[in-house]
Amino acid sequence: MSKVTRTVPLPQVLDRIKELLGPAGWSEQAEVIDALVRDERGLFVGSTPLIVKPASTEEVSAVLKLCHDNAIAVVAQGGNTGLCGGAVPHESGGQILLNLSRMNRVIEVDAIDFSMTVEAGVILQTIQEKAAEADLLFPLSLGAEGSCQIGGNLATNAGGINVIRYGNTRDLVLGLEVVLADGRVLNGLKRLRKDNTGYDLRHLMVGSEGTLGIITKAVLKLFPQPRDTQSAFCAVTGPDAALKLLAKARAVTGDAVSAFELISGFGMQIAMTHLADVQDPLAERHDWYVLIELSSSRADGQLRDSLETLLGEAFAAEWVRDAVFAESGAQRQNFWKIREGLPEAQKHAGGSIKHDVSVPVSKVAVFLDKAIAAVTAALPGIRPCPFGHLGDGNIHFNLSQPEGMDKAAYLGLWSDMNRIVHDIVIDLEGSISAEHGIGRLKTNELEHYSESVKIDALQAIKHAFDPKNLLNPGKVVTKPKPFGAK
Amino acid sequence: MSKVTRTVPLPQVLDRIKELLGPAGWSEQAEVIDALVRDERGLFVGSTPLIVKPASTEEVSAVLKLCHDNAIAVVAQGGNTGLCGGAVPHESGGQILLNLSRMNRVIEVDAIDFSMTVEAGVILQTIQEKAAEADLLFPLSLGAEGSCQIGGNLATNAGGINVIRYGNTRDLVLGLEVVLADGRVLNGLKRLRKDNTGYDLRHLMVGSEGTLGIITKAVLKLFPQPRDTQSAFCAVTGPDAALKLLAKARAVTGDAVSAFELISGFGMQIAMTHLADVQDPLAERHDWYVLIELSSSRADGQLRDSLETLLGEAFAAEWVRDAVFAESGAQRQNFWKIREGLPEAQKHAGGSIKHDVSVPVSKVAVFLDKAIAAVTAALPGIRPCPFGHLGDGNIHFNLSQPEGMDKAAYLGLWSDMNRIVHDIVIDLEGSISAEHGIGRLKTNELEHYSESVKIDALQAIKHAFDPKNLLNPGKVVTKPKPFGAK
Repeated sequence: MSKVTRTVPLPQVLDRIKELLGPAGWSEQAEVIDALVRDERGLFVGSTPLIVKPASTEEVSAVLKLCHDNAIAVVAQGGNTGLCGGAVPHESGGQILLNLSRMNRVIEVDAIDFSMTVEAGVILQTIQEKAAEADLLFPLSLGAEGSCQIGGNLATNAGGINVIRYGNTRDLVLGLEVVLADGRVLNGLKRLRKDNTGYDLRHLMVGSEGTLGIITKAVLKLFPQPRDTQSAFCAVTGPDAALKLLAKARAVTGDAVSAFELISGFGMQIAMTHLADVQDPLAERHDWYVLIELSSSRADGQLRDSLETLLGEAFAAEWVRDAVFAESGAQRQNFWKIREGLPEAQKHAGGSIKHDVSVPVSKVAVFLDKAIAAVTAALPGIRPCPFGHLGDGNIHFNLSQPEGMDKAAYLGLWSDMNRIVHDIVIDLEGSISAEHGIGRLKTNELEHYSESVKIDALQAIKHAFDPKNLLNPGKVVTKPKPFGAK
Repeated sequence: MSKVTRTVPLPQVLDRIKELLGPAGWSEQAEVIDALVRDERGLFVGSTPLIVKPASTEEVSAVLKLCHDNAIAVVAQGGNTGLCGGAVPHESGGQILLNLSRMNRVIEVDAIDFSMTVEAGVILQTIQEKAAEADLLFPLSLGAEGSCQIGGNLATNAGGINVIRYGNTRDLVLGLEVVLADGRVLNGLKRLRKDNTGYDLRHLMVGSEGTLGIITKAVLKLFPQPRDTQSAFCAVTGPDAALKLLAKARAVTGDAVSAFELISGFGMQIAMTHLADVQDPLAERHDWYVLIELSSSRADGQLRDSLETLLGEAFAAEWVRDAVFAESGAQRQNFWKIREGLPEAQKHAGGSIKHDVSVPVSKVAVFLDKAIAAVTAALPGIRPCPFGHLGDGNIHFNLSQPEGMDKAAYLGLWSDMNRIVHDIVIDLEGSISAEHGIGRLKTNELEHYSESVKIDALQAIKHAFDPKNLLNPGKVVTKPKPFGAK
């Protein structure tokens, strides 16, 4: 298991931090602490002597400098919606929790540069809204957008539903300000489209989950606002047909596909059973569905024509059995309620063992065949609920328990199921963490499946930036180590 | 100046390398060496005891291991078209030159994954052609595409004319295989759209100019082939009007702008004087021009309508004085011959002092005003020839000598002019190297303009991957150093 820093913070250092931040900047109250030390999925419940809430980069810098000089570990936290336990402190109680929610200013929106400069604690939905006010789009969109913070999105390189069109979070950022382990501020808050002045520190920090530095500000990329959005809910003959539909869709629509989401027949069944205010868009039940969405900043009506042409060809090729267009905002909302309600619906279907995996897009169908067969062989009656971002090869391969099985006994199989599914993923040259990161949940799986040279490289980077192992220790890589050291 | 490794290679180590690679894999011939040790611009002429041309990743690995064990420095080289001296060895003669041109296989094109797997030595133009054969697009395009190699494009994060639409080279790569300093192979040759398993080693290697590892293979992103391309050559009232035209173009065309290039009146003048087979597209001469190109994989004719609408609005707003559409492939070619002939045309206008800079897109006009005024004040009669990728804020701010001035005396002002221009760039929060990298040419400028924490971070990364300073020493960062060390 992870080796974590357990240095007990000295009371006088904590006092200095409190003094530095003032009364609004810290808390030792049990109920405040309790609310922030447990992760979104309830897998980890940590402990901390002090929660600090700095209001500025200068305060983050000062806190990190004090902690660095006194060998106190610091865990950065945004909206605490992460799914791998990366944003909560260890239960040993020696780590300070640094919550960024007070750094919530939108600093600037620039319509000529298509950019927005924000502090790390701004809620994602606020960013989307500020962009829309300027008639622009910030395309990052995911289930937790009402409470997750952009700093956390950046630290985990969040994915979401628009990746096929606009990329992952790392593709949506022009510049970053980051406080390093020793408290120094790396000012890369640029809004340049091209900058080749040395190794790319921005991409190194994005996805590093607070283990190399703490992101305090960012310049984000904005895009023209879509003027036309067309959605269709399709019953497809299978994942393989869905892949062919996807490739055809990219070509015939002018690469206007902004979402391409897979839903299984079981997913539809539990959505209809357990979610409120949703209707099955189609007359009959099918085994596989795709929610396809096109968008364009041209409002010339061509998009609907493209979608009709596409689906005409897809019917002729027998990729699609039935399909319905969203003729209104309400119909479109219904499509998305089904898709985005799947995590909620699964909660009503007993225990759920989760996988956030990706494979090359061309191998999704093979992956689903093999993985469904393997988990069913291991546990007859298990109910796979694969869904997600087919356009990115990213499937949330979640497994609901057999009906009637004891939930705790089922969840006890978590690691065994992970190993079965991840073996197949690796065999298909895929990833055991597509969009949720490593956090604490997957450090063992990462080490198990990575060649030693990759782990060495990750540890060497950690060692380069945080040799004392004080930034979110035990997450992503379990220790800093010089390259090539034994 | 750069501190470089000057370990003299041991003859017996060279013999072992020769034996390992066989007769086709190395050369000591003076004429072969002479052709490869001088950089594209003739700014640096290096020296080497041995050129090696490995034919496989295994051979690169074996060479690097031998060199690592014997403390011999290695300079990686692709097509040697770089503009900052990054791909040639130091004149001290102690560095082996590792040329990748024999690793020139296209391994796989996958139309479902929109990906192509290649070896590092494949010529960029070959990649473009292979993509087109599969009815797909690889969008990286730049002047040297007929001879530059993809490994070099990746190592320098090359830019080019399609960045506004498709991003820099780093945005066009899904996976990399890299041989590290000690000869171990980092196999990241994945074709995943999403992979959050640890720090992003791919983005760290892209743009590292052979100083952290040698890229041996890559998986590249492909895109749907454009079915419709529309180009216009416009006389604009000034750079500020050009910026407004750009923002409007992105919005009204469905973000279909694939190139947006600035040309000055002086550029047009020397193009017409010195280039063969080009015609001035417009009836009269103007101070500023923009070459705008739209492309779409939809062939519905809407693109031309969009362009006409855009230019209609631009005339009404007085951003544009005159404009002509390309009505044929020949007309479009003429537009591009003017733009791409500018470096050649400058050669006929005497000495040229070069800058490859970027500023936020919104500040291009301010930059041009200030920089032209400053260099003219410093040297009356100097003839600025700014051109390039306005859509990315990336201007090649090149300065032709005053007429009649001694060329050598003029080129002696290179560093002084750089300082004047770069001071303005930094003041506008820009970059002193937008798309050409640092190489050896700009290490001093990088150190001069960077905060010490950034240099520390770059040196710490170099130290993490290449503590012996054997990979392309003296380029990008001048020495490896642990983070925070004095």
